[in-house]
Amino acid sequence: MQDETNAFPAGTQVGTIPLDYVRKHSGIELFEKMIAGELPPPPIARTMNMTLTEAKKGRAVFRGTPLFDHYNPLGTVHGGWAATILDSALGCCVHTMLPAGTAYTTVEFKVNLVRPLFDNSGPVICEGKVIHFGRTIATSEATLKTLDGKLIAHGTETCAIFPLGSKG
Amino acid sequence: MQDETNAFPAGTQVGTIPLDYVRKHSGIELFEKMIAGELPPPPIARTMNMTLTEAKKGRAVFRGTPLFDHYNPLGTVHGGWAATILDSALGCCVHTMLPAGTAYTTVEFKVNLVRPLFDNSGPVICEGKVIHFGRTIATSEATLKTLDGKLIAHGTETCAIFPLGSKG
Amino acid sequence: MQDETNAFPAGTQVGTIPLDYVRKHSGIELFEKMIAGELPPPPIARTMNMTLTEAKKGRAVFRGTPLFDHYNPLGTVHGGWAATILDSALGCCVHTMLPAGTAYTTVEFKVNLVRPLFDNSGPVICEGKVIHFGRTIATSEATLKTLDGKLIAHGTETCAIFPLGSKG
Amino acid sequence: MQDETNAFPAGTQVGTIPLDYVRKHSGIELFEKMIAGELPPPPIARTMNMTLTEAKKGRAVFRGTPLFDHYNPLGTVHGGWAATILDSALGCCVHTMLPAGTAYTTVEFKVNLVRPLFDNSGPVICEGKVIHFGRTIATSEATLKTLDGKLIAHGTETCAIFPLGSKG
Repeated sequence: MQDETNAFPAGTQVGTIPLDYVRKHSGIELFEKMIAGELPPPPIARTMNMTLTEAKKGRAVFRGTPLFDHYNPLGTVHGGWAATILDSALGCCVHTMLPAGTAYTTVEFKVNLVRPLFDNSGPVICEGKVIHFGRTIATSEATLKTLDGKLIAHGTETCAIFPLGSKG
Repeated sequence: MQDETNAFPAGTQVGTIPLDYVRKHSGIELFEKMIAGELPPPPIARTMNMTLTEAKKGRAVFRGTPLFDHYNPLGTVHGGWAATILDSALGCCVHTMLPAGTAYTTVEFKVNLVRPLFDNSGPVICEGKVIHFGRTIATSEATLKTLDGKLIAHGTETCAIFPLGSKG
Repeated sequence: MQDETNAFPAGTQVGTIPLDYVRKHSGIELFEKMIAGELPPPPIARTMNMTLTEAKKGRAVFRGTPLFDHYNPLGTVHGGWAATILDSALGCCVHTMLPAGTAYTTVEFKVNLVRPLFDNSGPVICEGKVIHFGRTIATSEATLKTLDGKLIAHGTETCAIFPLGSKG
Repeated sequence: MQDETNAFPAGTQVGTIPLDYVRKHSGIELFEKMIAGELPPPPIARTMNMTLTEAKKGRAVFRGTPLFDHYNPLGTVHGGWAATILDSALGCCVHTMLPAGTAYTTVEFKVNLVRPLFDNSGPVICEGKVIHFGRTIATSEATLKTLDGKLIAHGTETCAIFPLGSKG
C-alpha cells in the first residue's frame, strides 16, 4: 500500500551507481532498474522524501511529500525542496535521452515558486520533459503539482552533454 | 571547536518562528537572535547541514557542508543542495532589509552550477547580497564558494515584498 | 499578399496607446484592435520587423523576420532579437488575461537560444502561453520556431500585476 | 563631441567580421579594433543605438540611448532593448577571454527589469563581467544603469566555448 505521507518507502537502502556501471548503460536502462528496485535510489531521495516513479524517453516523473524537516524559519516548506525535486525531474528527463557511454551535467536551472507548500500538502507530482536535445546542450522544463493538479512551482534547465571517457 | 564536517551543530533544536513574532520584528532582529541562539534554526538547516553565520542589512552568509545524504545517483552532491543554500542566502539577504510588519516571498530563482561538490569538499560559504530593493520587488545575487575561494555555484533571485496584515 | 521577407508591413504607422485608453480596455480588446489595424503597432515592431498575429485569452502569437539590421559582429542574428520577440509574446499573453483597469509589468525573463538565426532564415513564429495567473504575479512560457517547426529559442517570464489608478 | 542623444555615431558604416578574420584574432584584439574604428560596429548596434566603449579581459562596457523606435505599445522602452544591450555586454565580456581560434555561443541569458526606460532617459551604461570561465562553459553578469548610477536592469548569461575548426 502506498504510504501517502512518506513518498520514500521506509527502510529502503540508498546508494549511488558505480561510474563503470553508468558508462555501460543508457539512461533509460538505469532508471528502469531503479524503478524496479534493482538499483538503489540515491541518498537525496530519502533526504527529500521523494521517489522516481516513471521514466521514458524525454520524460521523467517524481513523487514527493515535503515534511517538517524541510521547513524554513517562516513556517512553510523551503524553496530548496521544490528546487530539488524540479532539478531531479529536469535532469533525469535529459538523462533518459542518453545512450550508454555519454553523460550530462546540469549547467543551470531556474524555478518559479507560485504557491507555498506545507507538511500537510500531501504528495506532489513533478514531471520533467525535454524541450531541446542537441549534440552538446539539452534543455528541459518541469512542473510541480498537487495530486488535484494545482500548480506549485515550475522550472527550466540547461544541461551539457559529453562522452564518458573509457577511464571516466 | 568548529566541527568542519558538520556545519549544523549536532543536537541543536530546530523550529519555526511564530508568525506573530515575525510580524513584530524586523528581519535583521530575527537573524541576530537566530545567530545568537535565541531563536531556533529552521528544520531545513539540519536537513541540509547548513547554518546562518552572518546577517547585516542587505547581506547574509551561510556555511554548509554537503554529506552523503545529499548525493544524487551519479555520485556527486545533488544540485538541489547548492540550490537550497543559495536560495537561503538569496532570500535571507532580502529579509534583512524588511522592517517589522512586512514580509517577502520568493517569486523565482536561478542557479548556475559551475563545479561539482562531494562529501569531502568540506565546508562551503554562501554569501547573498541585495541587488535591488524596491517597493514591491527585490532582487539578490549569491555565490557558493569553497573555503579557499573556488566558485562552486552562483545564482540570482526575485522576491515579492508585501505588508503583513495584523491577522496575517 | 503576405510579404515573406518583411513581417512588418511596409508603410504602416506605428505608435503607442494612450494610458487613458489602456485603462478603459481589457488586454484582449487592445490586441484585437491592433490586429484589426484600428490601433497602431508599436515602434519596436517596426524596428524588429515583427507583428502580432493572434491573441486570445492566455495566448499570443507573433511573426517576425530577422534582417541584416539585427546582426551581431559574428555574422548571425543578435540574441537580443530572439529575446525581444520572445518577451513580446511572453508579456502579451499575460496581458490578454487582464481586465480593464489593471496593468502588468515584466519583472524578469529568461531565454535559451538553441539554434542561430540568419537573415535568410525566413519568418519565424513566436507563441507565448500563460503558465500561472495569480493575483499579483503571473508567469508565461514561449517558443520561437521556424515555419517548419524547428525550435530556435524558448523562454519564460515573470510579470507583476497591479491595478491602474484612476490617475495612472 | 559625444552626441548625448545618439549613442551610435550618425553615419557610421556597420558590418560583420569575416569568420576567417575572427579565427585569427583574440576577442580582445577584435574589440580594440572595433573601438578604434578599424573594424565596423555590427548592424544591431545601429538598430539599438548603442556602442561598445570599453573592453578588457573579463569586462565589456556598452553605452546606449533608447529611442521612440524602441517603444512598446504601453509607452515605455520595450524590455527587449534592455535585454539586447545586456546580452551584448554579457557575451562580449566572455569573448574578451577567448584566444584566437576559439569561439563562443550564448546558451541562455536572464534579465531582471527593475525600472522603466523612456526616450528621454538619456544614455545608459551597461557593464558586463565574467563570473566563471571554464574549459567549455563560461558565465557572466551585467548591470544597466543611468549615468547617475540608478539601476535599470541586470542579468546573467551562460556561454558555451568551443574551438573554431580550421574550416569554420
